[in-house]
Amino acid sequence: MAAVLNPRLVLSSRPTGYPIAGKDITYDTTRTIDPTTVELNGGFLTKTLWLSLDPYLRGRMDDPKLKTYYAPQWALGDTLDNTGIAVVVRSDVPALPAGAHVMGFLPFEAYTLHPASSADGFQVIENKEGVPLSTYLGVLGMPGETGWYGLEEYGECKPGESIYVSTGAGQVGSVVCQLAKAKGLRVIASTGSAEKVAFLESLGVDRAFNYKTSSVAEELKEFGGIDIYWDNVGGQMLETAIENMKPFGRLILCGIGSEYNTEEKYGVKNLDRVVYWRLKMVGFVVPELRPKYADAFYATAPGMVARGELKYSEEVVEGLERVGDAFAGMLQGRNLGKVVVRVAQP
Amino acid sequence: MAAVLNPRLVLSSRPTGYPIAGKDITYDTTRTIDPTTVELNGGFLTKTLWLSLDPYLRGRMDDPKLKTYYAPQWALGDTLDNTGIAVVVRSDVPALPAGAHVMGFLPFEAYTLHPASSADGFQVIENKEGVPLSTYLGVLGMPGETGWYGLEEYGECKPGESIYVSTGAGQVGSVVCQLAKAKGLRVIASTGSAEKVAFLESLGVDRAFNYKTSSVAEELKEFGGIDIYWDNVGGQMLETAIENMKPFGRLILCGIGSEYNTEEKYGVKNLDRVVYWRLKMVGFVVPELRPKYADAFYATAPGMVARGELKYSEEVVEGLERVGDAFAGMLQGRNLGKVVVRVAQP
Repeated sequence: MAAVLNPRLVLSSRPTGYPIAGKDITYDTTRTIDPTTVELNGGFLTKTLWLSLDPYLRGRMDDPKLKTYYAPQWALGDTLDNTGIAVVVRSDVPALPAGAHVMGFLPFEAYTLHPASSADGFQVIENKEGVPLSTYLGVLGMPGETGWYGLEEYGECKPGESIYVSTGAGQVGSVVCQLAKAKGLRVIASTGSAEKVAFLESLGVDRAFNYKTSSVAEELKEFGGIDIYWDNVGGQMLETAIENMKPFGRLILCGIGSEYNTEEKYGVKNLDRVVYWRLKMVGFVVPELRPKYADAFYATAPGMVARGELKYSEEVVEGLERVGDAFAGMLQGRNLGKVVVRVAQP
Repeated sequence: MAAVLNPRLVLSSRPTGYPIAGKDITYDTTRTIDPTTVELNGGFLTKTLWLSLDPYLRGRMDDPKLKTYYAPQWALGDTLDNTGIAVVVRSDVPALPAGAHVMGFLPFEAYTLHPASSADGFQVIENKEGVPLSTYLGVLGMPGETGWYGLEEYGECKPGESIYVSTGAGQVGSVVCQLAKAKGLRVIASTGSAEKVAFLESLGVDRAFNYKTSSVAEELKEFGGIDIYWDNVGGQMLETAIENMKPFGRLILCGIGSEYNTEEKYGVKNLDRVVYWRLKMVGFVVPELRPKYADAFYATAPGMVARGELKYSEEVVEGLERVGDAFAGMLQGRNLGKVVVRVAQP
């Protein structure tokens, strides 16, 4: 095998709103690699199969001086990177043999040469349950973990209580909805299109509505208020949820989707309710909960997915070259469910 | 003894900002009572000695349609009421004999006739430690309990961590400051006058400043950020504290002093930090924590007060007739420490 193209995606400028393909994110085809001869130096070479496309990546495009994000920002000229799935092509690392499917942090490029020191960041996906590999980026990956671990840790769920899940049809939200139903909660969930409302109804939630055509406040009132709010939006949606919390309610914040792309932030005016109604509001990201919940999750959830008990929806971006255009759509919520990039066939 | 005046304070109209004496709160001297002959009907008669004057009372003056307050609003024409200390004058209730000092919910009036069914709401103050009775309304009463129970339950204090106490010289804040120091925390506290800054320094805090003459943001930055924020203010102060929280910080909200008297509420714009920095924000009021902590508190704190280990400051309003004027001053923070009303000498 001779040298082949090793295309990649580069952060070429910092977006102010939604990133623009060709301006902020550039598809670079100037590099090549020879997978059969490239020197491993004790490391391993992977061929990228799937990459995850997530809203939080928008924050990584911001100026590093904004020290508010939980993942480090890219420098200009950096290759984007995120969780992905690859097949090992050649390897000097016994734990990651050639042919193994592995999951870990990967650059947005076709082939990646990893030093031996990176091996710990990858895990082999055995996939005894035979689920589609890409589910390890969604319902069985960080988004699924986020919904599962967060609700377990902070929900304090009691059967008969009610939960509102904003962005309920999303990758995290849909797991929260299903897990909440399994725990005996009444579930109300919102999303942004009729198609997504139908998806939510297929998950068995008690009430699904389109926040663009219905009043969130009226929906929550009609539902009888909420004990738990799963927030992936922030801003005005959070304010409306607070307004409709029951005493001793819990608010679980795992993302501020409304504010990744706006310069002017919404001011939440009703935090007095946190005191009067003894609310608990907590923010989290998944890594710190992994040690506590990952074993149980991976012992349980893949089988549920295989048996159709844990449903998901996925949208595939075909090829690295289409990622730049797909970004804005994902941030605007135009996709249904988890967005994954198919970089190559296995 | 013949009939004597039984003056009282009445809510005569609902204030929009600070309550105005003679307009919103009226001193009514039209009623009389004969303490020696009034029929007890199985109940008990008390003579009011001390009444507590607290910021939360402002919320009770609002329209009952505002269902946001944790204590029920008064109707127009109601006698104000709050926690107080009285001496039992005559009694048909064996547990509350004549001569006993009792604490409980009392109307703002000189003499009160209680039905037998109210007896459970009163407890006898034995005061073996010989502290001033009025401390049972401040450092040994609801404010002291609030600071003590809240920090115990939600602080997750680790020695060497730092805490910011807004309204640190207040009745709750000064207990939080002292308890936090005892737990090995670094304490920064703000207040509104040079006199109060001096009081804070006498409590041994690491840094005290006047928020009217110093920048809260700069003070907190210079202090190295904070792990815990004790909030009794809300609004912009809360926003500034959030901005200076360290990751995994805790925010304990026990009052929204900045917003008792404003119609326009401040919008907190940086709740995205709750997610990025994994913050925990919790609101509480003291009653729900009482069962868990009251025994330990009353076994420990009175002795500390008697020995001067738990300091407090107190301002006495002399007589019911001065309460109306004292209200606005208390809400504006013009007092130093706990405000109590001396209704009568024991």
